[in-house]
Amino acid sequence: MRDITYENITDVVVKAYSGTADERLRHILTVMIERLHDFVREVDLTPQEWEDAMGFLLRAAEASSPERNEFILLSDLLGVSALVDLQDGKEDRDASITTVIGPFYVPGTPEKESGASLIEDNDGDRIIVEGQIRNTKGEPVAGAQLEIWQNGPNGLYTVQDPDQPEHNLRCTLHADGEGRYSFATIKPIPYQVPGDGAGGELVRAAGRHCWRPAHIHVMVTADGYKRHISQIFNESDPYIDQDSVFGVRSELVSEFDRTPTNEEVARHPDVDQPFNLIHMDFVLAATH
Amino acid sequence: MRDITYENITDVVVKAYSGTADERLRHILTVMIERLHDFVREVDLTPQEWEDAMGFLLRAAEASSPERNEFILLSDLLGVSALVDLQDGKEDRDASITTVIGPFYVPGTPEKESGASLIEDNDGDRIIVEGQIRNTKGEPVAGAQLEIWQNGPNGLYTVQDPDQPEHNLRCTLHADGEGRYSFATIKPIPYQVPGDGAGGELVRAAGRHCWRPAHIHVMVTADGYKRHISQIFNESDPYIDQDSVFGVRSELVSEFDRTPTNEEVARHPDVDQPFNLIHMDFVLAATH
Repeated sequence: MRDITYENITDVVVKAYSGTADERLRHILTVMIERLHDFVREVDLTPQEWEDAMGFLLRAAEASSPERNEFILLSDLLGVSALVDLQDGKEDRDASITTVIGPFYVPGTPEKESGASLIEDNDGDRIIVEGQIRNTKGEPVAGAQLEIWQNGPNGLYTVQDPDQPEHNLRCTLHADGEGRYSFATIKPIPYQVPGDGAGGELVRAAGRHCWRPAHIHVMVTADGYKRHISQIFNESDPYIDQDSVFGVRSELVSEFDRTPTNEEVARHPDVDQPFNLIHMDFVLAATH
Repeated sequence: MRDITYENITDVVVKAYSGTADERLRHILTVMIERLHDFVREVDLTPQEWEDAMGFLLRAAEASSPERNEFILLSDLLGVSALVDLQDGKEDRDASITTVIGPFYVPGTPEKESGASLIEDNDGDRIIVEGQIRNTKGEPVAGAQLEIWQNGPNGLYTVQDPDQPEHNLRCTLHADGEGRYSFATIKPIPYQVPGDGAGGELVRAAGRHCWRPAHIHVMVTADGYKRHISQIFNESDPYIDQDSVFGVRSELVSEFDRTPTNEEVARHPDVDQPFNLIHMDFVLAATH
């Protein structure tokens, strides 16, 4: 290992990690070392650029804390989180497409009846979201659990904002015997991912921005099916085609301003009018 | 940008960064995104493995401080630092090979005469290092500046150890009119890179260790030549073929236990006997 040259160093390093006991980790480390060295060689990275990169990573470290992992944000902004998610679902061809979970999911939110309203004291345009949970054979998944979370009128999730009630705009529902669900809420609004750390630096250097289009998070779980993570987006959102973290999927985009028919209004007598109606079905993949 | 799939997401992300104003940065970001996504695809990284990786990076962040950049250590342990250094010198075919600068270089150490002793109150085996600075045409580089630093008998560099005098075992020398230099010191000893953070975690998972073979750092500078960064290693070191950070180069390995001839002893009347003698020439590359 002393005959190290520009030509052989990648092989030398891979060999040095070949004693990794865990076979899967050994494979991951091998490919990681190879692709990392490929990158350094392909761009002919200079010592000064390496030093700049080390400074950038230290600034990412400085922006991190137990409550904030700036490396997750960098993964999001470089499309790695979205790629990992799409890769996880790539064999589930007949199921609905999934998207990233994001940093604001909290398990164990209060149970509500399907059809319930999350509106409470929140200002904003009233909407009702309804749809059906099915499997890839087209059969309803009776009693499937839906966890819902979204941001409030000030753009913040309740976990970010001590001024919101603990469980504001989030809950756990169960679909009915035909897999149908609905809930009333207010329109979520676009917001920016944190731009005051290394992630913001990256985005600004690239002439991008930190905005995400408005969305409602939904996580669907049912026995025998893969956990299904989704977001519902608004067709009319100004950032719908510029999501900073690459979370939008065509089939998860809906028109948030659809005026319901009289028949649809009659199905939701408990919700103040006017309201708009969003329909979104989710097709679950069976556990492999 | 809403039609994002497993197949096209890498192109979508590269395109999102195509507005980067700085052309060189745009190229670096493009290749970085491509190789990063290649890695995720090639190992079929799972959401759980991604989450584990994010936890690892957060632990690297937690180990970092203004005085310690754990990402530099990770770069060292994955051979990236060594690759960048070798890449920088790859066109300098007739010059001496270089190696990494490491974290303990401090500019502006006290000037001493060539031939001076750094031994002072340090315990250890006395050695004299001597050699010549030349250019790639074989001509001596008169008056070249050499900066020297190494660790003490307890394995620590003076910057790590408040109990050592400020400039213990480091200095700045100038070669004579024929490019010749010499200095007396004690044998450096092997030491471990910090193993209490994410770097140590990586090394342990791979069944590696944190040891570096003993070495003396030398940085040579002269007008018209590239800054030359080197380390002198001991052939008999137990870790000579297992350097945790891939810094050893064959032509920088010397026998630290060579007994000098009577003539050589006579050239160093000011150094207490017995001492061993190391010869190491450095050939500088001209500035491109």
